[in-house]
Amino acid sequence: MHTFQEITRKFESFLEQETIFPDTPAHLYDPCRYILEAGGKRIRPALCLMAAELFGTLSSSAFHAAAAYELFHNFTLIHDDIMDHAPLRRGRKTVHEQYGMATGILSGDVMSIYAYRALAGVDSDCLPQILQLFNRTAIEVCEGQQLDMDYEQQDEISVAEYLHMIRLKTSVLLAACLQSGAILSGASIQEQQLIYEFGINLGLAFQLQDDYLDTFGKNEQTGKQQGGDIIAGKKTILWVEALQSADTASKAALLQTTALSGNEKIVETIALYDSLQIASKARKLIHEITEKSLTCLKELKQDESRKRPLQELTSLLLERKY
Amino acid sequence: MHTFQEITRKFESFLEQETIFPDTPAHLYDPCRYILEAGGKRIRPALCLMAAELFGTLSSSAFHAAAAYELFHNFTLIHDDIMDHAPLRRGRKTVHEQYGMATGILSGDVMSIYAYRALAGVDSDCLPQILQLFNRTAIEVCEGQQLDMDYEQQDEISVAEYLHMIRLKTSVLLAACLQSGAILSGASIQEQQLIYEFGINLGLAFQLQDDYLDTFGKNEQTGKQQGGDIIAGKKTILWVEALQSADTASKAALLQTTALSGNEKIVETIALYDSLQIASKARKLIHEITEKSLTCLKELKQDESRKRPLQELTSLLLERKY
Repeated sequence: MHTFQEITRKFESFLEQETIFPDTPAHLYDPCRYILEAGGKRIRPALCLMAAELFGTLSSSAFHAAAAYELFHNFTLIHDDIMDHAPLRRGRKTVHEQYGMATGILSGDVMSIYAYRALAGVDSDCLPQILQLFNRTAIEVCEGQQLDMDYEQQDEISVAEYLHMIRLKTSVLLAACLQSGAILSGASIQEQQLIYEFGINLGLAFQLQDDYLDTFGKNEQTGKQQGGDIIAGKKTILWVEALQSADTASKAALLQTTALSGNEKIVETIALYDSLQIASKARKLIHEITEKSLTCLKELKQDESRKRPLQELTSLLLERKY
Repeated sequence: MHTFQEITRKFESFLEQETIFPDTPAHLYDPCRYILEAGGKRIRPALCLMAAELFGTLSSSAFHAAAAYELFHNFTLIHDDIMDHAPLRRGRKTVHEQYGMATGILSGDVMSIYAYRALAGVDSDCLPQILQLFNRTAIEVCEGQQLDMDYEQQDEISVAEYLHMIRLKTSVLLAACLQSGAILSGASIQEQQLIYEFGINLGLAFQLQDDYLDTFGKNEQTGKQQGGDIIAGKKTILWVEALQSADTASKAALLQTTALSGNEKIVETIALYDSLQIASKARKLIHEITEKSLTCLKELKQDESRKRPLQELTSLLLERKY
């Protein structure tokens, strides 16, 4: 079995050898190289490869599927950053800021096709099933991004709606990576379902943790401005939960914070969160979902030693204090 | 054998039954319905289905492939219109004008995935080959769009460069539609190559004709402003050919027209085209490429009756006077 570090190292060298974008047209492919070389944690391909090794071996097909998911993920980052007008990503200018919007759109498009080109490298026996899963997931990710944009325009959404949105926007891709690895190692339908469900809950817990840490995490560890989500007026689990559990007066007070700015906005919002015990509610929810995720892993009959890399990755992702 | 009209009618009903976009998220799928329902001539799916019938029958796989190409084509229209800042398409507002840019990007993305979803419906024996052809073609189309944007920024490009660009941007998609239909009807490699080559030349001739008619076609038939390309300063085969065949004085005169506007720009440019006999040179080139295209069809051993629908579609596309 390989650790997260070992597996990502293997994946990097596969990616370098296999996904060689042509030199020209440079305006099309330079942005693709730019975003891929900026790194990222390679969580998605690692999940695909770890699932392949949990149920079998690290086949060439598994590496192709892993590359497909990583390319698809990077394509969505390029386009999401355009839609969200984001200036920075991974500490560098976003693709459209660096190269212009038209190039950002087109480079994203071609990268999504390279994802399918990588996918076409999986064993032809498994190709129809893998392609179908990939398509369904990719459609769900687009739907999640649309819901995210829709919800930004709505005054109030429920916790259930918020969870549904992040399930589509984040979780299904992690889950599909895992299921694809499982399929390629010949896992049974039941095993596929368990590893998919593990991924769904891992993704939800990870996103909720992200929301939590942005407001309640320690500033010096994230490197981000504490309360960045509050300043930006982002809908997070904290905001959604607060509005849902507030009485009329607290609700009015919460909505009044949207007119504030700067440090005052952060302080006022956190004070309201504290009065509603939002931090502990959020921690409880994250804990429950993390447990669900680990229960799925436990139900799998494979040796503990085979499960260890996934357990360790889960710890790494969910027990971070920053 | 089915005529163009019959085949497009069959395709429309397939599309209605099979490509049902969900109702929600409405902001994501309304634009997809909007552009698909605006029509278009359905040339790409017709070519796919006609090739399937030339070498065999109209199988369910052929309809799935035809739908994939039509969805892919419409996806490129949505994104190209954003990149080109185009306000109108098929007599209606473009998607991003109607729904906003973010929605245009995301609806295009999801439509491209629906194209792959349709493709996944082809017979699994043929799927790897069809997927590979589709991916290669889709990448070429993106490269063509990038070259088109690059060339807009360059003072001068050669006729060869221009033909290479329109080959990628327009022709390879028509050719791949035809080859996919051929593959799905079990055509030999040589037959596949001939029908592909037919499509390449058909696409080139069609695009060159489009350039020709914009300047030299009769105004009342196109419904477009005569000389629209000249006003917009677009690089067309006429412009590229003129610059390439001009002496120093004519070249300087041509470049001076770029500073003009309105009717004066059209009149001056056409006068220079006339002095360089550009209209007849372009007609000659279109004629030669059309002949190449028809020669490919002739070399196929199938009965004339089987080839007739493709011959008729070629006439329809290339002998139009508007």
